[in-house]
Amino acid sequence: MEPNKNLKVYTLKETENYLIHGRTDETQYPLPLFFNGSGIEVNVTGTELWIDVDVDFDIYEPWTSVELNGAFMGRQMLMPGKHSLCLFRGMSADVVKNVRFFRELQAMSEDNACRLLVNGFRCDGNFFPVIPKRFKLEFIGDSITSGEGTYGANEDMDWLPMYMSVSRNYAKMVSDALGAEYRLVSQGGWGVLCGWDNDPRHNIPSIYEQICGLAQGETNEKLGAKKPYDFSRWIPDAIIVNLGTNDAGAFRQPGWRDPVSGEVFRQRMQEDGTFHPKDVARFEEAVVSFLGMIRRNNPTSHIVWAYGMLGFELTFAITEAMSKYQRMSGDANIAFLQLPNTTEETVGSRTHPGVRSHERAAQIVIEYLETVLRA
Amino acid sequence: MEPNKNLKVYTLKETENYLIHGRTDETQYPLPLFFNGSGIEVNVTGTELWIDVDVDFDIYEPWTSVELNGAFMGRQMLMPGKHSLCLFRGMSADVVKNVRFFRELQAMSEDNACRLLVNGFRCDGNFFPVIPKRFKLEFIGDSITSGEGTYGANEDMDWLPMYMSVSRNYAKMVSDALGAEYRLVSQGGWGVLCGWDNDPRHNIPSIYEQICGLAQGETNEKLGAKKPYDFSRWIPDAIIVNLGTNDAGAFRQPGWRDPVSGEVFRQRMQEDGTFHPKDVARFEEAVVSFLGMIRRNNPTSHIVWAYGMLGFELTFAITEAMSKYQRMSGDANIAFLQLPNTTEETVGSRTHPGVRSHERAAQIVIEYLETVLRA
Amino acid sequence: MEPNKNLKVYTLKETENYLIHGRTDETQYPLPLFFNGSGIEVNVTGTELWIDVDVDFDIYEPWTSVELNGAFMGRQMLMPGKHSLCLFRGMSADVVKNVRFFRELQAMSEDNACRLLVNGFRCDGNFFPVIPKRFKLEFIGDSITSGEGTYGANEDMDWLPMYMSVSRNYAKMVSDALGAEYRLVSQGGWGVLCGWDNDPRHNIPSIYEQICGLAQGETNEKLGAKKPYDFSRWIPDAIIVNLGTNDAGAFRQPGWRDPVSGEVFRQRMQEDGTFHPKDVARFEEAVVSFLGMIRRNNPTSHIVWAYGMLGFELTFAITEAMSKYQRMSGDANIAFLQLPNTTEETVGSRTHPGVRSHERAAQIVIEYLETVLRA
Amino acid sequence: MEPNKNLKVYTLKETENYLIHGRTDETQYPLPLFFNGSGIEVNVTGTELWIDVDVDFDIYEPWTSVELNGAFMGRQMLMPGKHSLCLFRGMSADVVKNVRFFRELQAMSEDNACRLLVNGFRCDGNFFPVIPKRFKLEFIGDSITSGEGTYGANEDMDWLPMYMSVSRNYAKMVSDALGAEYRLVSQGGWGVLCGWDNDPRHNIPSIYEQICGLAQGETNEKLGAKKPYDFSRWIPDAIIVNLGTNDAGAFRQPGWRDPVSGEVFRQRMQEDGTFHPKDVARFEEAVVSFLGMIRRNNPTSHIVWAYGMLGFELTFAITEAMSKYQRMSGDANIAFLQLPNTTEETVGSRTHPGVRSHERAAQIVIEYLETVLRA
Repeated sequence: MEPNKNLKVYTLKETENYLIHGRTDETQYPLPLFFNGSGIEVNVTGTELWIDVDVDFDIYEPWTSVELNGAFMGRQMLMPGKHSLCLFRGMSADVVKNVRFFRELQAMSEDNACRLLVNGFRCDGNFFPVIPKRFKLEFIGDSITSGEGTYGANEDMDWLPMYMSVSRNYAKMVSDALGAEYRLVSQGGWGVLCGWDNDPRHNIPSIYEQICGLAQGETNEKLGAKKPYDFSRWIPDAIIVNLGTNDAGAFRQPGWRDPVSGEVFRQRMQEDGTFHPKDVARFEEAVVSFLGMIRRNNPTSHIVWAYGMLGFELTFAITEAMSKYQRMSGDANIAFLQLPNTTEETVGSRTHPGVRSHERAAQIVIEYLETVLRA
Repeated sequence: MEPNKNLKVYTLKETENYLIHGRTDETQYPLPLFFNGSGIEVNVTGTELWIDVDVDFDIYEPWTSVELNGAFMGRQMLMPGKHSLCLFRGMSADVVKNVRFFRELQAMSEDNACRLLVNGFRCDGNFFPVIPKRFKLEFIGDSITSGEGTYGANEDMDWLPMYMSVSRNYAKMVSDALGAEYRLVSQGGWGVLCGWDNDPRHNIPSIYEQICGLAQGETNEKLGAKKPYDFSRWIPDAIIVNLGTNDAGAFRQPGWRDPVSGEVFRQRMQEDGTFHPKDVARFEEAVVSFLGMIRRNNPTSHIVWAYGMLGFELTFAITEAMSKYQRMSGDANIAFLQLPNTTEETVGSRTHPGVRSHERAAQIVIEYLETVLRA
Repeated sequence: MEPNKNLKVYTLKETENYLIHGRTDETQYPLPLFFNGSGIEVNVTGTELWIDVDVDFDIYEPWTSVELNGAFMGRQMLMPGKHSLCLFRGMSADVVKNVRFFRELQAMSEDNACRLLVNGFRCDGNFFPVIPKRFKLEFIGDSITSGEGTYGANEDMDWLPMYMSVSRNYAKMVSDALGAEYRLVSQGGWGVLCGWDNDPRHNIPSIYEQICGLAQGETNEKLGAKKPYDFSRWIPDAIIVNLGTNDAGAFRQPGWRDPVSGEVFRQRMQEDGTFHPKDVARFEEAVVSFLGMIRRNNPTSHIVWAYGMLGFELTFAITEAMSKYQRMSGDANIAFLQLPNTTEETVGSRTHPGVRSHERAAQIVIEYLETVLRA
Repeated sequence: MEPNKNLKVYTLKETENYLIHGRTDETQYPLPLFFNGSGIEVNVTGTELWIDVDVDFDIYEPWTSVELNGAFMGRQMLMPGKHSLCLFRGMSADVVKNVRFFRELQAMSEDNACRLLVNGFRCDGNFFPVIPKRFKLEFIGDSITSGEGTYGANEDMDWLPMYMSVSRNYAKMVSDALGAEYRLVSQGGWGVLCGWDNDPRHNIPSIYEQICGLAQGETNEKLGAKKPYDFSRWIPDAIIVNLGTNDAGAFRQPGWRDPVSGEVFRQRMQEDGTFHPKDVARFEEAVVSFLGMIRRNNPTSHIVWAYGMLGFELTFAITEAMSKYQRMSGDANIAFLQLPNTTEETVGSRTHPGVRSHERAAQIVIEYLETVLRA
């Protein structure tokens, strides 16, 4: 192959014609992509486009996907190091191409070294402004929203980056169908009050107000992960909260012992198989409180709690908390939406929702948001 | 046509080999079919089968449908008078055929003369026992459960019997898929607390404990409609309540003035477009009270409130009432299930759910009940 | 029920505002409906509409179906005698309603007494002209086009009128999707050269040029069935020939002995399981000849031979005959279209194509005709 | 990332536990993957698996895809050089994983430098035998079988490797559904008699008997591309020929002038828009001759000519040639199958069949082959 001698290097500092997807610290260079669904989008002429990225991790490797003119083109894992990845080559020079490069892997709270940074592009064409979408959507969730199970065979049970995605994620399906930009804040195993294993530190509210409070360690801190997230700069039309599944699961798990204090935290199941009312009550308080936090930071956004892709057990707890929040706050701009449960026909890997479950859920969310966003 | 000389008349008194579908007074002869989904089922040999019915009405004519070996065969309206309707002819004599004859039209509270009575059959074969289904399901509802809109073109807006059905009804789809018998108690325009027009008499709880409290007038009374319904003789595995849609609609209507007392009943909307909390509260009380009534009469049945085919407005009111009922009663055998809203693609006539909306709803109910009935 | 005193009787002689569907002798009164898909269509105001029909048969009863504003409303069998059938009642008087009344049963070559005649209507409104459709389509076929198997359970194996239809027929689906009027000429068991049982009299070409050569006997003759069909008055844009299935079946049957001459006719299978070339050749000649007959009578119509819903065995024989006809005639306005075979998932009663098989076939024909009719 | 110190290098020479997909010269080391659908499959334990490949090209870069336990995992383009690609990492060590690595890009007749070679694997587990599939299928075709258009947006019109695939190819869908291994011999733009541009050298029969006669140049020759293909070592149960689309297209193109002899080759369209009979005749001869060649090399395989995904124009020419071949040879083990044409709803990039068109075609082929392979 003759190298293309017309390629010029464009660092992100040198061009403004790109759109950043996902919460990040936009003052950083190179630009960190923290979440699945984080990415960068360009409109560009030329025959050839490359992206320069900088990757590291200890255990969990990032995966990325590429869309060309809105169509899925590729998906791959990345090894540590600096990489130039060719996004297209051999194309008609004069035509403007829309390219989107996405992180597939969720923010990785369990691997402080894990990072995916964008330095810039190489191209023999020119960059043009990316036209903003009509709507903005924020999705807050757990492994479902991290896309766990959207790749992989049904029998695959390991907990691995390759099974997570944004490319087969209901959040992306909803956003593409509605013509919306989207940002994801999600973490597998986490809940509103506590994680699936009763670990009370694994609650999404505790990190919601940081750029990416999920990313730990010094490196991530330098990358801006722990900075407060500036809610005023990207105002969602709607916020979709898909949480509660791990909170429900916790009731079936042994208690979690705090390694420092030795205290045990546990959501208790009663002998008759129902959840202990006191523990349901503190879950409900967490929901009420989180709704308040979301509203405080997003005064105008419609908030819809979308729940059910892995069971309906906490429906009454969530709706009761929402009713209580609504009574206390007078906030009428919230709704509860039940999503279709995952079935044998729609399950993916790791007994998580597969792509067909995400498609069904997306359809319900799309139809609902159309009534909200149109209004 | 040579008349078939081998036909014998079997009144319902003379044979026991039939299964009655739907709530009715089984001591009556001829047998009244009050509800849509009410009907009669036989297993029969012979080449030819007729059913003898007795029909009357002032305004709203009954429609009926016929299934042969589980397959839809015909649907027609019936005029006043005595009719012998041929259900099949020319079939292989020795084969046992399963035949189901159904009323398509809902119980008709607005036409006291409306009645559909079964006298018996004419047949040149023999009747065999109808094997009971694995499960029993009761569906309680409004126009959705009356199948309004399941027939008719999208532009058809008249309120007419021909647009209602059981043959394209989610209740039937669910029951057939699960192998269940079903009984329907539904009335278009009615709610839990009041009707779509704020008429507080139009609440389903007020008639739930009678065989068919919806059917008015002397004739219906003689037919047993007002008798208490004996809940002990047909115990549902699950009860699906699809109510709330008209209660929500009432908030947008003028008040209803009692023709006798002159008092006005009205569910009020506030200036900011939200429902008046006091009126929501009395709706919630009605839900709590109705759940108690259902449970009292059906101690072992799973109760699922399935809501949403025509909008989600009272989701919080329903779930809050259910939570309250649950706290008060300790009854853990209830659930809330949101059904997919009706869209432009799935709407039928009279802006009601069409057959595709019923199919979508049925799928959700089927999947849910499979988890309940299997357990 | 109070009878509607405003109903007026309109015989077909007294109004011109109706559209006749299907081949018939339009000079007859009452009007015979010979084929499935034959029928009558009106645009009418008023609250109530009845149709007056005159029915007879010895063995095979006619079934009819009704569409209101394009939506299927009902389907029923008719007994011998004069009947007034109510098509709608209680509708808004001023709105124009489109009503189509169809014969579901194929032309019945095996019951000379079988007839369905339309006398006229009763109505309290006025009749308005029926706007002609954009296209005209003629479907020529066998049991598939007679809709055999489109109703009935999979295990139903009797040969009965109730399993045939136009209402679930691919011919109707195609026509409705394309906005076309349609006429059917079909007979179960018949072929191009001979019937499924090698009866050489059961070939569609022999009756194609009569109005309804399938209907036998004096009564049908008086009704005009044997009159030459005037091809010049209703010129199809396309003619869909779905024949060959019975010709293929004949190779597996014993020979047919002419009851008069004692001669035996048989399409022979060879010992190696292939069809005897000489017998294939005479089938091909029949195809060539029939194509010539169709073209002679329809100089401008596109002819597509659509084959395969019950197996592909005669594909090469049909295509070779079509090629030969094309070479001889220079007729480029013909095409061969393979339809999806019927599978376990799509089969209906009597091991014939069910409604899902008709839907799949219709989709292929629709897509094909769109390329032809658009051009 | 700590490198995995337990990885061992396995060259293909050192292990026999792999299955080669696609025609190739299996005596070569490293192993060339010539066609789309060519690849290598292993069953392996261990936590981590890498594949070592050697890539080169001048213009057209190879793309590859990876399946883990039958599920699509990734797809990427490869640059020139030696690469170790991680296929999975972090998995449970003891579980046997099935991994398939495929070339997505068709054999590249227009880039002699294009090559994709497999050296071997790196793994910390052990390799186990790959169980052979029940059936073997060979697909012979053009751009459709090369998967052109299965990736890319509808507006993408460049001729590029990234739009081709086996991962969204009907050949793969058919094979996976039937439990079959498959081999592809296809080239975009080529036909039975000549290419889309009338170039008579671009006919598939001319290269069918070589391993990969499409791959030109010295390098490919060294890789064994021009060697005779040994038909006796992998005997297909069925051979699916999807050719004729480019032969049809040629009739609309200017003639092709031989750069050496100056002679012009052209399939002529007549003034009336029909194809010149003499040119159709020589196409038919090419079909007859190719069928003979296929049969000579595959005495027992069922041959089905599957045609129509991009129009039906040569249906009669193909079927007539098949009939002629059948008459001459007595070969009854052939069939013609029409595939659904590509529509606006199913089209992909470059106005070629998109993934939905491939899915529809696959369904027809699957249903057909089930009747053949079952028999």
